[in-house]
Amino acid sequence: MQALVLLHGRLSYQTGYPQPGPGPDEALIRVTLAGICATDLELVKGYAGGFEGVLGHEFVGLVEKAADEKWLGRRVVGSINIGCNHCATCIRHGPEHCPHRAALGIHRHDGAFADYLTLPTANLYPIPDTVPDETAVFTEPLAAALRIREQVRLQPAARMAVVGPGRLGLLVAQVLALAGGHVTVIGRHRQSLDLPAQLGLAAGLVPDFAGNTFDLVVEATGNAAGFTTSLRLVRPAGTLILKSTFQGTANLDLTKVVVSEINIIGSRCGPFAPALRLLARNQVNVQALIGGEYPLAEGLAAFDHAAQPGVRKILLRP
Amino acid sequence: MQALVLLHGRLSYQTGYPQPGPGPDEALIRVTLAGICATDLELVKGYAGGFEGVLGHEFVGLVEKAADEKWLGRRVVGSINIGCNHCATCIRHGPEHCPHRAALGIHRHDGAFADYLTLPTANLYPIPDTVPDETAVFTEPLAAALRIREQVRLQPAARMAVVGPGRLGLLVAQVLALAGGHVTVIGRHRQSLDLPAQLGLAAGLVPDFAGNTFDLVVEATGNAAGFTTSLRLVRPAGTLILKSTFQGTANLDLTKVVVSEINIIGSRCGPFAPALRLLARNQVNVQALIGGEYPLAEGLAAFDHAAQPGVRKILLRP
Repeated sequence: MQALVLLHGRLSYQTGYPQPGPGPDEALIRVTLAGICATDLELVKGYAGGFEGVLGHEFVGLVEKAADEKWLGRRVVGSINIGCNHCATCIRHGPEHCPHRAALGIHRHDGAFADYLTLPTANLYPIPDTVPDETAVFTEPLAAALRIREQVRLQPAARMAVVGPGRLGLLVAQVLALAGGHVTVIGRHRQSLDLPAQLGLAAGLVPDFAGNTFDLVVEATGNAAGFTTSLRLVRPAGTLILKSTFQGTANLDLTKVVVSEINIIGSRCGPFAPALRLLARNQVNVQALIGGEYPLAEGLAAFDHAAQPGVRKILLRP
Repeated sequence: MQALVLLHGRLSYQTGYPQPGPGPDEALIRVTLAGICATDLELVKGYAGGFEGVLGHEFVGLVEKAADEKWLGRRVVGSINIGCNHCATCIRHGPEHCPHRAALGIHRHDGAFADYLTLPTANLYPIPDTVPDETAVFTEPLAAALRIREQVRLQPAARMAVVGPGRLGLLVAQVLALAGGHVTVIGRHRQSLDLPAQLGLAAGLVPDFAGNTFDLVVEATGNAAGFTTSLRLVRPAGTLILKSTFQGTANLDLTKVVVSEINIIGSRCGPFAPALRLLARNQVNVQALIGGEYPLAEGLAAFDHAAQPGVRKILLRP
């Protein structure tokens, strides 16, 4: 089958990659659409200890094989963490933090930038008929945005900011706004504020905001400067959510964290079922976030496109 | 009066320093005993933007003047933050995070390494007669340790670690142990583990512990390496309390914070009344933490002593 494969730190498009065979609890899924995420770009740079295999973890597909016949022919999305289901972590926290876990297209499990992938049927979610592929492909990042709502109790009157007006930041901002709060999207370049404004979100440039201004700040830039900005903006005893990962270390001053008793919360994967409900109800605008679509055969060009600053979500169609 | 004064980054002992005059809501307090804290040592290095004035915020004293006569002659300790009492922060969070605050011996208010200090009577707590000065002088750092119990719900069955077997770390460890949990104090040198053992606490060296081991880790070292160690030790979805401040930036890798969804909580000042109750009940051993006592006139030698590694609490007697 065709696949975008990361090997020895180099991404390549291959046509003779072996089609995966599903294990006893797994489904074989034909990928119909996939999305390129910032994590994919970081993986190419060496993030997460050098994954090798097929990239991709945001996808929509059709189930072609599964032991449980009810899944056959279903249009699905799938959560990406595959835990051992036996350890104390799996039992207490689910598979997301299992020390033995695999993760689709990220760690020990080939991903979605291919004709086929496999996932345990326990990871699958049927897509409502009213939700098109181009919307459902945002389920995974929207679930990640919703993770914040599992972690903190959002005060409707809170002053909230999302630093980083990128693909993930704009999903996070929309999710926060659904709590009724006032959400400001903060960027470094004037042109990066057009899309937040188009989505009805308040937006501004980093220097426009005094320090200690926001009750809740979400860092969604994927760089160290974003952390420093976010820490400056959050008020004493406020909350700072770290939503983006970046490769490597950064020179950081943690004095304010202690003196102002900031609560920093790392935030990763979230719940799929609520994300699909929000998409089915059109309560989150994802269509405005699409920046282009490429056939999988042009995957390398798609990656180049996705890596450019300010680019919206790039989709891949096998 | 005599005082230890920080001016232009240099600490000096002075005998002709002007005695402070109490404001209308303040008491004049004759200091009978004071303690040197790591924060004092950091202030001499330039921490907190260069405070100038009398250092010292851990003290016991006798009220000599106060508008409210009930305070006259009382033996007291006092909380260190002096808020404006009018802003939204004071009203919602108390004076600890007031943007206009002063702090005894730290920011815009002369401190306790002197014959006299002033504090608002609202900051004062009478010391029970059964608690000697040498115990009561630990009220402020013990309150800071208790702050953790205001911030997180301690699970009695939690595996807890305190990184940094110093003065503050050993107060924190004792407070955590009062929840019934298993507390391990972790240090870098074998001889630093003697005192924790003497206090009945489990203790070990940094390399003795695998990563992802503890549900709750308290960073109490005052250096960047302590942060890195603490982050390594905390389990996925666990909590990391930052209890110590250090001057300057550090090169840190925040990847684990996001991927393992760590909750980092900065922690500073805490409640005095519960600290005094624990001291009155002898539920925290502070006598074992005393490393020496100097007359205030030998304050510079006392600071040199306190700055040496592994030294316990150094007291100053005016």
